Amino acid sequence: MKVAKFGGSSLADANQFKKVADIIKSDAKRKFIVVSAPGKRHEHDFKITDLLIELAKSYMANEKYKSYYITITDRFSQIIDELGLDKSLYEEIKTTIDDVMVKELPDDEKLNSFKAIGEDSSAKILSAYLRKLGLKGSYVNPKDAGIMLKNDRFGAQLLPESLEQIYKLREKDGICVIPGFFGFTKNGSIATFSRGGSDITGSIIAAGVKADLYENFTDVDSVYSVNPNIVENPKEIDVLTYREMRELSYAGFSVFHDEALIPAFEAGIPVCIKNTNNPDAKGTMIVSERKNEENRVVGIASDTGFSSIYISKYLMNRELGFGRKLFQILEEEEVSFEHAPSGIDDMTVIIRDSQLTDNKEETIVRRIKEELQADTVSVHQKLALIMVVGEGMKETIGLAQTATAALGEAKVNIEMINQGSSEVSLMFGIKANDLHRAIRSLYKAFFEFENDRT
Amino acid sequence: MKVAKFGGSSLADANQFKKVADIIKSDAKRKFIVVSAPGKRHEHDFKITDLLIELAKSYMANEKYKSYYITITDRFSQIIDELGLDKSLYEEIKTTIDDVMVKELPDDEKLNSFKAIGEDSSAKILSAYLRKLGLKGSYVNPKDAGIMLKNDRFGAQLLPESLEQIYKLREKDGICVIPGFFGFTKNGSIATFSRGGSDITGSIIAAGVKADLYENFTDVDSVYSVNPNIVENPKEIDVLTYREMRELSYAGFSVFHDEALIPAFEAGIPVCIKNTNNPDAKGTMIVSERKNEENRVVGIASDTGFSSIYISKYLMNRELGFGRKLFQILEEEEVSFEHAPSGIDDMTVIIRDSQLTDNKEETIVRRIKEELQADTVSVHQKLALIMVVGEGMKETIGLAQTATAALGEAKVNIEMINQGSSEVSLMFGIKANDLHRAIRSLYKAFFEFENDRT
Repeated sequence: MKVAKFGGSSLADANQFKKVADIIKSDAKRKFIVVSAPGKRHEHDFKITDLLIELAKSYMANEKYKSYYITITDRFSQIIDELGLDKSLYEEIKTTIDDVMVKELPDDEKLNSFKAIGEDSSAKILSAYLRKLGLKGSYVNPKDAGIMLKNDRFGAQLLPESLEQIYKLREKDGICVIPGFFGFTKNGSIATFSRGGSDITGSIIAAGVKADLYENFTDVDSVYSVNPNIVENPKEIDVLTYREMRELSYAGFSVFHDEALIPAFEAGIPVCIKNTNNPDAKGTMIVSERKNEENRVVGIASDTGFSSIYISKYLMNRELGFGRKLFQILEEEEVSFEHAPSGIDDMTVIIRDSQLTDNKEETIVRRIKEELQADTVSVHQKLALIMVVGEGMKETIGLAQTATAALGEAKVNIEMINQGSSEVSLMFGIKANDLHRAIRSLYKAFFEFENDRT
Repeated sequence: MKVAKFGGSSLADANQFKKVADIIKSDAKRKFIVVSAPGKRHEHDFKITDLLIELAKSYMANEKYKSYYITITDRFSQIIDELGLDKSLYEEIKTTIDDVMVKELPDDEKLNSFKAIGEDSSAKILSAYLRKLGLKGSYVNPKDAGIMLKNDRFGAQLLPESLEQIYKLREKDGICVIPGFFGFTKNGSIATFSRGGSDITGSIIAAGVKADLYENFTDVDSVYSVNPNIVENPKEIDVLTYREMRELSYAGFSVFHDEALIPAFEAGIPVCIKNTNNPDAKGTMIVSERKNEENRVVGIASDTGFSSIYISKYLMNRELGFGRKLFQILEEEEVSFEHAPSGIDDMTVIIRDSQLTDNKEETIVRRIKEELQADTVSVHQKLALIMVVGEGMKETIGLAQTATAALGEAKVNIEMINQGSSEVSLMFGIKANDLHRAIRSLYKAFFEFENDRT
């Protein structure tokens, strides 16, 4: 039994819906289908969810909203027409939108109700289309599926009792099409995951029904070993572990919404990334453990937009509590840091630029100087991080050597090396300007001359 | 004007006192002399200070103490005899010991008074011997020198007003011989620095009198670039910066007591490490800045006796305050950590074994599991740290490459790399068993094939 999740680009228009239906039809094990809202059809198109948010905001602010309303309903109308489905489905979707508009609800709940329409409509359309093709497909509302959530400040979280409820879906006959992205709180109001949350719904359903496989259909053949915008035609990854995936996602691999993996990860369910537009491609499997010990490095991820704060104080090392006090200041300023490598009398804190407004930077530097009586505090910007990722890296002599040699060859100065904390990655900090050169050289060293390695 | 400090081995017997006197005589600028207590004459000998501590403890516990008393007084008697000094000096020292024994004092003050006798007697003997040689030498008690201290839990600390007082010593005629290691509190009781504290006295006097140079006489020709017990006849270091010295001292370079450098460092006074037994050797200079940019790596230090605590928790990275909470636990358990490299979902804390009793280890692991709800907490022992040290390392492409290649060649697995926090060092964590092999290979790469470097 498989759970298949289809992303926004897989459901962008009627033609994509047809591809999805073909995929479902081709494998009887695909019993649970989770869908996103229709995404972009081309680069300059809008995602339905973005349009719904604009509609909601305009409507709630008593501004002009009609153009959004028309664009949204037109998109659905077109898909339904082209799939040859009954006009009544269009009326149903339109009524849902109208109902949300007039219903008296608190602001955040009203916004959530707007946002949920995209996925909800996708599921209704897909299930109707499956029935048209002669398959036994039914729309299952997240409430009926058992997705019970509670709101907290990081977005909606699954209530533990949900999984048992979801398991009962197995008894349902035929194919269940479930909208992703939202669920319901105990008092019946709609709650949504953070953006990209259909991945989470898919992962939850897979965990709940104890699926053999969670297929995540998107628009790439597989996860690449390196950013294809930097290296042309990079090697595809066949098998990744959860840990490797997480390290890769951290630094620029945007295949997955990080948290999405947790339910599948905890239930030990393998995940397969596949391409709706090329379903015969093998895809990339994400599993708990990887056997192939040969390929120690599976991917090289990178991301820019980091700054570092360097702090030095003579005999810092002897000062019990220095690190804690430093972290306390960051916490009080609500700045979450990425890494904090430390020397003997110095510490460097790596922070995402998005965390560090000018104002906060100033406050933090001042507080560190004053409260910790540091000798030096300096901020360095435009830092890029590179992660060389692979299970079992920790045990391999020569990997650091290969990596540093590659960076040396590319004349890239290493600002930071961080190995040993994570067992599956080796991290480098370099100047953002050097990034492409660095990545190309690392890729060459690890993937093109693999047999030359020490 | 120079301050010269002579360590215990430089004053172990009459013959050593003669060498010291020759050194003082040979340079009229050596006006301020700071002395340690007589040290070991040979491997199985006792240091006077250790004997004084034993004497104090036995006497204060009402145990047999006479043998210590005799051994100590005999050592002084022998030195005084062999230097041909007046018997009255021996009587004076003996009376000092007797006085300390009978005087009513709080326990810690009494112990300090015992401990101070070694340095105090050295200074009295040396000044008498200088006079015998026709030099104008006088014993200056730390109280008269102006060394005012306050006790805190890390040992005695200098009161800021002392430096002004010490500056007045410049007006004194002839050579001032000042005992190291102790000073006086405002209410007149003796306070001692931590062990090795004569280096601190020397550094304080140098800062106070604004010396041109602080000479630290010991029993090695210079600071070596690597531990001579691991590599035979290693390269000597001509010039070191304070920062380099500090990083080297941290990991096994025991030439200096770390804190000893602070007063000289703050006053910007250069320090020279010299050999009492070979005063013509050039020695090693420790300065604020080093010109020679060629030699990027000046030394390789290493130390064993570390453990690491590995903590992993899925999505740790997203958790504001995780690092702070971890450090808080360590602080509450009074465990000071050395480094804390972090991955995305994991952190490793490196701790000196001396900080981590079995009991504390258990408590810390339990608290991390419970309070931070970590997925994994594991402790790894027998870790060694290696520091490759040199000013300007941060800017040199290829240094990390040379180091990792050397470790790879020696078949040493790298458990941890930490670069980028300190601007003057590159740190590796390896298994303690691999240490000698690793150090030899690094030494070869950085010092024997220096011109081959990338």
